[in-house]
Amino acid sequence: MDTKPVLKLTLDGATKVMNAVLKEALKRKKEISVAVVDAGGHLLAFSRMEDAELTTISIAENKARCSAFTAFPTGKLSRSGNERSDFHALAITLAAGTDKMVNMQGGLPIIVNGQCVGGVAVSGAGHSDGEIAQVGAALLGV
Amino acid sequence: MDTKPVLKLTLDGATKVMNAVLKEALKRKKEISVAVVDAGGHLLAFSRMEDAELTTISIAENKARCSAFTAFPTGKLSRSGNERSDFHALAITLAAGTDKMVNMQGGLPIIVNGQCVGGVAVSGAGHSDGEIAQVGAALLGV
Amino acid sequence: MDTKPVLKLTLDGATKVMNAVLKEALKRKKEISVAVVDAGGHLLAFSRMEDAELTTISIAENKARCSAFTAFPTGKLSRSGNERSDFHALAITLAAGTDKMVNMQGGLPIIVNGQCVGGVAVSGAGHSDGEIAQVGAALLGV
Amino acid sequence: MDTKPVLKLTLDGATKVMNAVLKEALKRKKEISVAVVDAGGHLLAFSRMEDAELTTISIAENKARCSAFTAFPTGKLSRSGNERSDFHALAITLAAGTDKMVNMQGGLPIIVNGQCVGGVAVSGAGHSDGEIAQVGAALLGV
Repeated sequence: MDTKPVLKLTLDGATKVMNAVLKEALKRKKEISVAVVDAGGHLLAFSRMEDAELTTISIAENKARCSAFTAFPTGKLSRSGNERSDFHALAITLAAGTDKMVNMQGGLPIIVNGQCVGGVAVSGAGHSDGEIAQVGAALLGV
Repeated sequence: MDTKPVLKLTLDGATKVMNAVLKEALKRKKEISVAVVDAGGHLLAFSRMEDAELTTISIAENKARCSAFTAFPTGKLSRSGNERSDFHALAITLAAGTDKMVNMQGGLPIIVNGQCVGGVAVSGAGHSDGEIAQVGAALLGV
Repeated sequence: MDTKPVLKLTLDGATKVMNAVLKEALKRKKEISVAVVDAGGHLLAFSRMEDAELTTISIAENKARCSAFTAFPTGKLSRSGNERSDFHALAITLAAGTDKMVNMQGGLPIIVNGQCVGGVAVSGAGHSDGEIAQVGAALLGV
Repeated sequence: MDTKPVLKLTLDGATKVMNAVLKEALKRKKEISVAVVDAGGHLLAFSRMEDAELTTISIAENKARCSAFTAFPTGKLSRSGNERSDFHALAITLAAGTDKMVNMQGGLPIIVNGQCVGGVAVSGAGHSDGEIAQVGAALLGV
């Protein structure tokens, strides 16, 4: 089998996810960046509220990419349900290239029909990043 | 005078510009990326149609940044109205860092009340990039 | 439509392409690197003959990625059949990031059922790079 | 003595190592990337199963390079048999450049007639990475 069928995230889908995240951030009065990438980690949709820190731009994109690449929430939980140490998360980030991935909470995979079609991440709301991103990730499936 | 008042492009403004560009691209049946950056060259809003070439992501962002930095359309026209050579445009791109700027047509400054508040650029529509970006840039002022 | 169905290149398909390329290079007594990437530009299969220049490693990968991203052979021909100037090809390479793309002949998209599922590229055989890569690209479709 | 004879790993040797690793991974139903590099740390052979995480690409290559550079398995054991701390392993990774080396288990040197001729590494199988890589490393000697 040289090729096999998979699902591809569209701009329409990515925009729907992003807008839900922006709405949730506004409700919580958080200034954030939100990034949505496809399964290959390439940017589909991005917004930064004008008063969010500029560091949030690359952090949001790199957390989204990390989730898309691993099909897993960024942060410290492992697939088996055990906690990954912060140290382990840092090691993976360094290992995979710090210009591409950030393995800190706030990124979530976008799963449709059991397939990881991309990732969404929020940066700028501190410990709430993951909860806000979840509002978007939950829209398209799981 | 230690500080002075300036205008700052908001996410609302950037989104308005981006959506006008996307609508124009759809009308022309072009698959594009569109990027809107602030006066510091930092991304505010971005969309990639899922069938646009992946090269368009960085090219759109780098053209938008180039316009925001120079308050001038990307490409080969100089401020004085004379044509810049392709070579000159390339030299500027290289000088400023190819991971940040692209001086090829398709990027436009966003000018409000005579102030450059950011840039918008399109990639993916070839020679029409600039015309499509113009639909967005024209919305907020000039 | 949040997602849409596409084809994904497998390791089996990529290996088939790579082995055909290696066989052709051996026949021509060329020392080469060959890289096969998926539609997102991510490496699936790679071989370097031990006497090929070390520069061929990144050049092969970056040409393959360039073809995957553009769904087009690397080099100077445009989609419309007109020649792109070498200058234009260089500008695109610089614009998209020189650590990711090389737009010099030797890379070809892998097209299956009209979809670009990846790219294959050869480096090390000079002007024959494209001909050798073509033997692999032709295996899976077009 | 201005020069001295050494052994150089060939593509044939590297491919033999890689194929043994792929076979072992299939047997264990693990989705992995495998990389084989020469004594200079330069890629000779690489395969990624299409459902392996995209992070495995650079991690496999960087672990293989780390083993080739040190003639030692990646991870926490020092040459003297004492455990290196995780922190020590991370420090070495950082010191050597995170775009080149990863000192986490899963990489092994390829030793032939007492000479380190390269390295092989697996990423994607978690704690089994090293065991799977060992099947390949053991083929050519030691």
